[in-house]
Amino acid sequence: MPDLPDSLNRYRGVVEDALRAALVDSHPQLLYHMMRYHLGWQDEHGQPSNASGKALRPSLCLWACEAANGDRLQALPVAAALELVHQFSLIHDDIQDGDTERRHRPTVWSLWGQGQAISAGDAMLTLAHQTLLGLSATGVQPLRVLKASKALNEGVLRMIQGQCLDLSFEENLEMSVDGYLDMIGRKTGALFRCSLYLGALIASEDESEWDRMGRAGEALGLGFQVIDDILGVWGTEEMTGKKATDLRRRKKSLPVVYALEQATGHARQELLNIYSKPALDETDVNIVLAVLDDLNTQDSCHSMASDFCQKALDEIRAAKISTRAKVEIEEIVDFLTEREY
Amino acid sequence: MPDLPDSLNRYRGVVEDALRAALVDSHPQLLYHMMRYHLGWQDEHGQPSNASGKALRPSLCLWACEAANGDRLQALPVAAALELVHQFSLIHDDIQDGDTERRHRPTVWSLWGQGQAISAGDAMLTLAHQTLLGLSATGVQPLRVLKASKALNEGVLRMIQGQCLDLSFEENLEMSVDGYLDMIGRKTGALFRCSLYLGALIASEDESEWDRMGRAGEALGLGFQVIDDILGVWGTEEMTGKKATDLRRRKKSLPVVYALEQATGHARQELLNIYSKPALDETDVNIVLAVLDDLNTQDSCHSMASDFCQKALDEIRAAKISTRAKVEIEEIVDFLTEREY
Repeated sequence: MPDLPDSLNRYRGVVEDALRAALVDSHPQLLYHMMRYHLGWQDEHGQPSNASGKALRPSLCLWACEAANGDRLQALPVAAALELVHQFSLIHDDIQDGDTERRHRPTVWSLWGQGQAISAGDAMLTLAHQTLLGLSATGVQPLRVLKASKALNEGVLRMIQGQCLDLSFEENLEMSVDGYLDMIGRKTGALFRCSLYLGALIASEDESEWDRMGRAGEALGLGFQVIDDILGVWGTEEMTGKKATDLRRRKKSLPVVYALEQATGHARQELLNIYSKPALDETDVNIVLAVLDDLNTQDSCHSMASDFCQKALDEIRAAKISTRAKVEIEEIVDFLTEREY
Repeated sequence: MPDLPDSLNRYRGVVEDALRAALVDSHPQLLYHMMRYHLGWQDEHGQPSNASGKALRPSLCLWACEAANGDRLQALPVAAALELVHQFSLIHDDIQDGDTERRHRPTVWSLWGQGQAISAGDAMLTLAHQTLLGLSATGVQPLRVLKASKALNEGVLRMIQGQCLDLSFEENLEMSVDGYLDMIGRKTGALFRCSLYLGALIASEDESEWDRMGRAGEALGLGFQVIDDILGVWGTEEMTGKKATDLRRRKKSLPVVYALEQATGHARQELLNIYSKPALDETDVNIVLAVLDDLNTQDSCHSMASDFCQKALDEIRAAKISTRAKVEIEEIVDFLTEREY
């Protein structure tokens, strides 16, 4: 992913400071070492490195808070918590998917084993909750902190539900597009929802505004994920910095789910045969690509992504936020859902 | 473990009701099925079963609350949360240790795979936090709920730190008894500490009483774990319902750590040789047992357990709790630390 647009990138420094404060060295060294390694702050030997992510979710949260005329410093603990939740999910996902690399570095489990990586993820999730409680120190009233905690919990639970569904989907050829969208609405959408919801919650007294921003966030997350799925099949290395390997890896992302639902006759049988195999070779990939083309799959997926973006924009435009934020959201949506540069 | 003494067993029904309310069926079915299976409420096919545990930690919490003249119904959400945290840790521990059975039933990961079991544990931990937030509905003031949440988080984090240390210890012959006690103080002690601390927190305004009960809880947890370690080496099946297999399984529990620290000359060399092997056979086990006997290991471990019990009793006797509770705590300590019947 290229750098975030300025409207989001401006938060990167404060978010990183908050994350570093949440992860000051503690005991035992290995646990904190694994977490700091995963966050890109040090290499596997504990030497400083500079491979940290873009902090998309916390930036969205701080953006939403400022958009609704809130104080971003008040929202910082919950923004940092969102990033820690996201990173916890990546540590566990890497184990669950057996992935040995993430962003061109070995994954935590591939360096320290699955057992220790499970603990690193558990600790990161726990630090997320602890970090959120820092809202009390930024002047947020106790009742509001509890509401934030409840919302984050619900988001985490939906995210885990999505991951459970995703793992089940990998062994199932009978999934529908609706089922797939429900899954990514949880796995990806729930934390995007939380990001905007929690930003609004810090800024505003009006709970209907929190919900509105939350709905915008979920739609944004869905649009983002659908584009990610498209790039996983048709993206070039120039666009995304990595090869499009989703078909080869037999990943059941939206294009494949759509084709399995739409294809009939011979084409459907070919897909079913290929996805019954344990692995796909070059010939299989080309057959699948041909079936996807025949069904206009790429256009249909783009159209779904556009619908989600439109929903996000409609919600945001109706929200009680600054004029400047209403301009910025266009740039944010464009960035998240048209990442083809 | 035999049934809890009446002073704790009386809470079992309300705890189970609270847990069932926290785990009403939700989506996706598999996630909730795995959790309900792990809690012993259904078998692997989803049929009702009756294999639930004794709910020791929540019972201690409710006992502490009533001991300090609190209302157990107010404390119920946090008591249930403690049990969910404990059960989350067991689901993940079973993966980390590669254990295929727990209480004569297949473990979650051995039925549904490691990936899904990781999600089941993650969900259980998240439900724990969500359940704690139910304190608001039992009339606990928001600031107090936040303090409870903070305490539970700290306990969970210490528990995970202990698990990380435990996994590292398995590959390390140079650990000290002090290092071992620090590890179990986290892995087992932290949640026992939380149980009494949180019970007191619901009942009393006096934070020094929360700390006192917390210290008693930690000492109780340490005593409990030391006795568990003793039974893992010298316990008979009649005493514990299972064979003492810790030596055979090469587990570095307190007796072995003590012996590795105390042994000198030939005995030490024998231990080091045996614990460098990937597995122990019957002859190895008998050699280790002989070395432990020569060093009076069982007596020394019992003496450590007694010291922890004494500390727990001293703290409790100095606490502002009912006369009845001061009698009951003797029974509770005896039960937890002299479980040889």
